[in-house]
Amino acid sequence: MFDAIRRLAVRGAPAIGIAGAMGLVLEVRGFEGDPAGLVQRAEAAAEFLGGARPTAVNLEWALERMVRTAKEGLAAGESTDSIKRRLLAEARAIRDEDAAMCRAIGRVGEGLIRDGGGVLTHCNAGSLATAEYGTALAPMYTAHGSGKRFTVFVDETRPLLQGSRLTAWELSRAGIDVVLLCDNMAAVVFKEGKVDVVITGADRIAGNGDVANKIGTYGLAVLARAHDVPFYVAAPSSTFDLGLDGGDAIPIEERSADEVRCGFGRLTAPAEVACYCPAFDVTPAQLLSGILTERGMIKPVTASNVAAVVS
Amino acid sequence: MFDAIRRLAVRGAPAIGIAGAMGLVLEVRGFEGDPAGLVQRAEAAAEFLGGARPTAVNLEWALERMVRTAKEGLAAGESTDSIKRRLLAEARAIRDEDAAMCRAIGRVGEGLIRDGGGVLTHCNAGSLATAEYGTALAPMYTAHGSGKRFTVFVDETRPLLQGSRLTAWELSRAGIDVVLLCDNMAAVVFKEGKVDVVITGADRIAGNGDVANKIGTYGLAVLARAHDVPFYVAAPSSTFDLGLDGGDAIPIEERSADEVRCGFGRLTAPAEVACYCPAFDVTPAQLLSGILTERGMIKPVTASNVAAVVS
Repeated sequence: MFDAIRRLAVRGAPAIGIAGAMGLVLEVRGFEGDPAGLVQRAEAAAEFLGGARPTAVNLEWALERMVRTAKEGLAAGESTDSIKRRLLAEARAIRDEDAAMCRAIGRVGEGLIRDGGGVLTHCNAGSLATAEYGTALAPMYTAHGSGKRFTVFVDETRPLLQGSRLTAWELSRAGIDVVLLCDNMAAVVFKEGKVDVVITGADRIAGNGDVANKIGTYGLAVLARAHDVPFYVAAPSSTFDLGLDGGDAIPIEERSADEVRCGFGRLTAPAEVACYCPAFDVTPAQLLSGILTERGMIKPVTASNVAAVVS
Repeated sequence: MFDAIRRLAVRGAPAIGIAGAMGLVLEVRGFEGDPAGLVQRAEAAAEFLGGARPTAVNLEWALERMVRTAKEGLAAGESTDSIKRRLLAEARAIRDEDAAMCRAIGRVGEGLIRDGGGVLTHCNAGSLATAEYGTALAPMYTAHGSGKRFTVFVDETRPLLQGSRLTAWELSRAGIDVVLLCDNMAAVVFKEGKVDVVITGADRIAGNGDVANKIGTYGLAVLARAHDVPFYVAAPSSTFDLGLDGGDAIPIEERSADEVRCGFGRLTAPAEVACYCPAFDVTPAQLLSGILTERGMIKPVTASNVAAVVS
């Protein structure tokens, strides 16, 4: 499990948290000592697994919750086997809570998807990043499940192609019609009237509703506005960082130039050329039609409406 | 030559025109019949070569010019060999006129580039698309030659990466500062105030000034307008198709889905996924600050100003 998280075989913050919790269960499964030894083993496993992606907040959060669960079992005088069962139940609860969050976002957003219509999304905020359904893709799965037919236009999402590699794959597998695009084709698809609504995920949302998400989201929001296409962001309430007044305060990671000039290990530009490679951008709240959360829709996106729904 | 044009080994509207004319010369070179037969052979070659790329008007224009040249030789009672020499001279003239045209565009556009400033371009409309200097890049080469220092932000230009592979290469080689971007990063570069002006090429321009150019140009023009960044197109007068009232009449070539799903020589999406792959888009005249031609600047871009400069 450490290796799977380390090499991004499991990615997406919620999915990493769930995988970490399940990894801890695997690690203690064969333990046959006393309850205090089991807690020690759980703590060691948490420390080890937490090192796989040191910056992923959900991983640390899930592992701390698992260790706390083991300690609660020990304090209650439970047997080794009982604490093991408690740990498995807790890992499943983390998974189930995430799945419930996804389904709630799906219900909140389903109405945005028109039978016979078109949706556009960017990057991957789907079932490959969460326990189930995802965030941005949850309304699509929900609408598909209730019998609507529609087409999802998927931006390939350079530089790392999460749209091509993940979103196109999972939606196709679910039987949803997909049309894959290069990022620079979205404007034409808007102009041609093929898209009723854009829905993307979010990496962090400030208190005023400004959204940091995968690079390209901001340009897409400007283009959607220019074509009168509604633009929604879907995210759980845990993605909001109410301590930040606005998006300018969100730090933007700049990644290696090789992601631009060596698409998939193959040099596609002069070897020494300078590149600009911000991993995220910030979309100001004014460009959003609304934000879908598991607690309901924030619309219009203002600081007071954000506070009313998520705080 | 047909294959070279078809598979984009030769690309860029002016270069395609030159290559088409040279291709016609190659086709008639070994012809040993009478002058009337030579003209027939030239007409057949023009029809065949003209089918290699539907959107670029220069190819059709150059081939028509070559056929007219052959007919003039026939009407003047020239021998087969004399008409062949006339055709070679005409193809060379097309090339030399193109080189002179590039330098003239460079002079017309040089003033758009500010010493210490930033320029953004898309695709490749440089020396690899023309006989020399290019169209969109000509003002940059001219400004560089006159001692200005500036940075050119180059969109990689999916799906075929002409920005990464051609523009970044030729500008770097000329000693001009280049920063390479994924297409979806341009909006952020505009927002950050790094770009004073956008200059792109054109594949075909309608009588009202609507511009067909590489896919992504339209979105870039919308984004430039949203950030108050002036947007110019550079093209020779031969790129204008005054018989077309507006851009809606320009045929847009749709290319193979594999350019999107196997863009890096490697499958990066589900093998069977549907893709949309328009090679070009149309930017309406209202989004243009001006059009640079070898005959001067068209500004503002209106049907009457287009007619005044190019007809």
